Amino acid sequence: MKISSDLSMKSIFSDRISDVPRSFIREILKVAVDPSVISFAGGLPNRKLFPIDEIKQATNRVFEEYGRDVLQYSKTEGFPELRRYISQRYLEKQNLDIPAENILITNGSQQGLDLLGKILLNKMDDVVIEEPGYLGAIQAFSVYRATFNPVPVSEVGMDIECLGKVMSKAAPKLIYTVPNFQNPSGISYSDANRLAVADMVRNTNTLLIEDDPYGDLRFEGVGKKSFKQLIPENTVLLGSFSKTVVPAFRLGWIVAPDGIMEKLVIAKQAADLHTNNFAQCVIYRYIKDNDFDEHIKKIVTVYSSQRNAMIKSIGRYFPPEIMYTKPEGGMFLWATLPPETSSMKLFEGAIRDKVAFVPGHPFYVNRKEVNTFRLNFSCVDEETIRIGISRLGQAIKDQLAA
Amino acid sequence: MKISSDLSMKSIFSDRISDVPRSFIREILKVAVDPSVISFAGGLPNRKLFPIDEIKQATNRVFEEYGRDVLQYSKTEGFPELRRYISQRYLEKQNLDIPAENILITNGSQQGLDLLGKILLNKMDDVVIEEPGYLGAIQAFSVYRATFNPVPVSEVGMDIECLGKVMSKAAPKLIYTVPNFQNPSGISYSDANRLAVADMVRNTNTLLIEDDPYGDLRFEGVGKKSFKQLIPENTVLLGSFSKTVVPAFRLGWIVAPDGIMEKLVIAKQAADLHTNNFAQCVIYRYIKDNDFDEHIKKIVTVYSSQRNAMIKSIGRYFPPEIMYTKPEGGMFLWATLPPETSSMKLFEGAIRDKVAFVPGHPFYVNRKEVNTFRLNFSCVDEETIRIGISRLGQAIKDQLAA
Repeated sequence: MKISSDLSMKSIFSDRISDVPRSFIREILKVAVDPSVISFAGGLPNRKLFPIDEIKQATNRVFEEYGRDVLQYSKTEGFPELRRYISQRYLEKQNLDIPAENILITNGSQQGLDLLGKILLNKMDDVVIEEPGYLGAIQAFSVYRATFNPVPVSEVGMDIECLGKVMSKAAPKLIYTVPNFQNPSGISYSDANRLAVADMVRNTNTLLIEDDPYGDLRFEGVGKKSFKQLIPENTVLLGSFSKTVVPAFRLGWIVAPDGIMEKLVIAKQAADLHTNNFAQCVIYRYIKDNDFDEHIKKIVTVYSSQRNAMIKSIGRYFPPEIMYTKPEGGMFLWATLPPETSSMKLFEGAIRDKVAFVPGHPFYVNRKEVNTFRLNFSCVDEETIRIGISRLGQAIKDQLAA
Repeated sequence: MKISSDLSMKSIFSDRISDVPRSFIREILKVAVDPSVISFAGGLPNRKLFPIDEIKQATNRVFEEYGRDVLQYSKTEGFPELRRYISQRYLEKQNLDIPAENILITNGSQQGLDLLGKILLNKMDDVVIEEPGYLGAIQAFSVYRATFNPVPVSEVGMDIECLGKVMSKAAPKLIYTVPNFQNPSGISYSDANRLAVADMVRNTNTLLIEDDPYGDLRFEGVGKKSFKQLIPENTVLLGSFSKTVVPAFRLGWIVAPDGIMEKLVIAKQAADLHTNNFAQCVIYRYIKDNDFDEHIKKIVTVYSSQRNAMIKSIGRYFPPEIMYTKPEGGMFLWATLPPETSSMKLFEGAIRDKVAFVPGHPFYVNRKEVNTFRLNFSCVDEETIRIGISRLGQAIKDQLAA
């Protein structure tokens, strides 16, 4: 079923779709399926921690309690009880007062990014993106032909001086941030850094997107003030059940001020009417009928041990000049090779040595060769981490010696 | 949580979102929730026909057979077995040879429309839309700032003369059609009309979207050749489980030629990574473990009787000058008042008489007062149809006499 030569492909597509980068990570993951390869390349939560029995019970209860209505078309905004639960949890856990009316249920946070791009971005609008930054956000905003302004992040957060320059030069429409245990780097913004960013955004027309899929997965340290507390009028907060319950259900949410919420609902309706209502009810019942915090603790215990194992092995097997982050939570760690050392070339050597990771370049908006790479620690057990990191250490040494 | 006056609302939104009409139907449905109102306004499948026990069984089997993997992130294209099943069914039922690789699973057909708009439409691109036409398509394409070219449809299909004029004047990028039991009108395109439309589109750069959510719900007559058979290279075919199984799962699909499929996958990934994988597996198990055709027959039997009841009551209670369609399937019927008679004004009178419908104007792209309206027969039993249509007949008589 090839498209006919008469239907000229060049002319039919929109300009916007030509700007969207393909996911390099998809290609990487294809290489990493070889079972003899130890993969730190994925970005998946650990399947062993999925509460499958409890979700099965919740599913059966949903059929019994809600009956046929749960299978009908439903509200664009989402299942009301689930939205109220999310609202309550923000109050209890973060002392954030968010009315359920300001919460829109989406197909994962990814759809939140797409809807925000859709209602906010005109072609060439300036968007601040972290460098390195989340690939899914780069893809979502590329669709709407944003002009990206990368601002470096370090272990304390955003580069304030660089952000200041961008703010005064470009008056960006959006700043996209993952302030807790960022993907890809694992870094978190310090309290001082958050205050400095907030001061810069307050009283401007810039909206800050605070994407927080990993916030609950804190191994150590104390929770920081969220941007939603610091600059509520300028902040849109995104959340997700993908990392704390299961990803397959595609359930996330957007917290937005009234005016933005209204436009988001119009965009959501045009995009897919509403999110799977049955899945929303099942997640709600699962959370209500079980100890959700206890479940999160289990995830934290496993990921934290695996992060420790990875950091210990890096100390043992990597050459001392390799720098790396020490994440306080989440699923990722970020390593930096000496300047001018290609992580893509390292990837090729590492695959020969049967270990995989994601080279850093997809997380930058306009660079092809970088000396950084991402390591995932959520899906590999401690002994396998030791073996994989020792292989990777050897591949690094081989490359540096070459 | 009002947005601060500092964050000027006018300046922050994209141009595209201001072009999207709000759903008037949502407002209508709010009026129609009063239990004393008999509502022909909805567009829902009949909840009594949802195979809830079978879906519950399918759900439990999915947990047992597929285990944790069903809860993990999965392929952007969709669950492979489900795509293969859809491919097979097209071959068996319509003698259509569609490789599974050319099927993308979406969140209902609505997302199919959004993704197609996203990858195809630049601002001001010409789109042919049926008049009256499906509101969800008008909304989806409005987001991408299409220029709509309405082409009237009648009980035989598209107005070929008008389509010809548009084709020669505008060379439209898209033609959007619902050739079987259209929403809102219930009309179907005749074989001759399909051939005439196909002849006009063949060897052009225009893509025809064949949206077919109701095709399986045929009460009488014989199935017509689909555009996918007549002009495969120029056709994108959309399907859905919302009307034949349940809507809450938000499961539909796009059949697209290779080049378009590739762009759709990029857009789908940026939009929400993939559709709920658990729901895809449950629908697949439901269909494999049950007699799906037998289930569809049950729906057809009920809807067909209710259509008969509605047509009989219209004959009895409506003034003879009211025209109406006699759909061979689907869920809707379309009525036409005498010229210059406002169906919106009728709506106000009808609500006082405790009966609701959808006035016609939301189904036109640029008209505010029309003499047409939509009646839904899928959700109301035969006796209630009789009472509701008698009330509506009285409201019409009152308006015509005024």
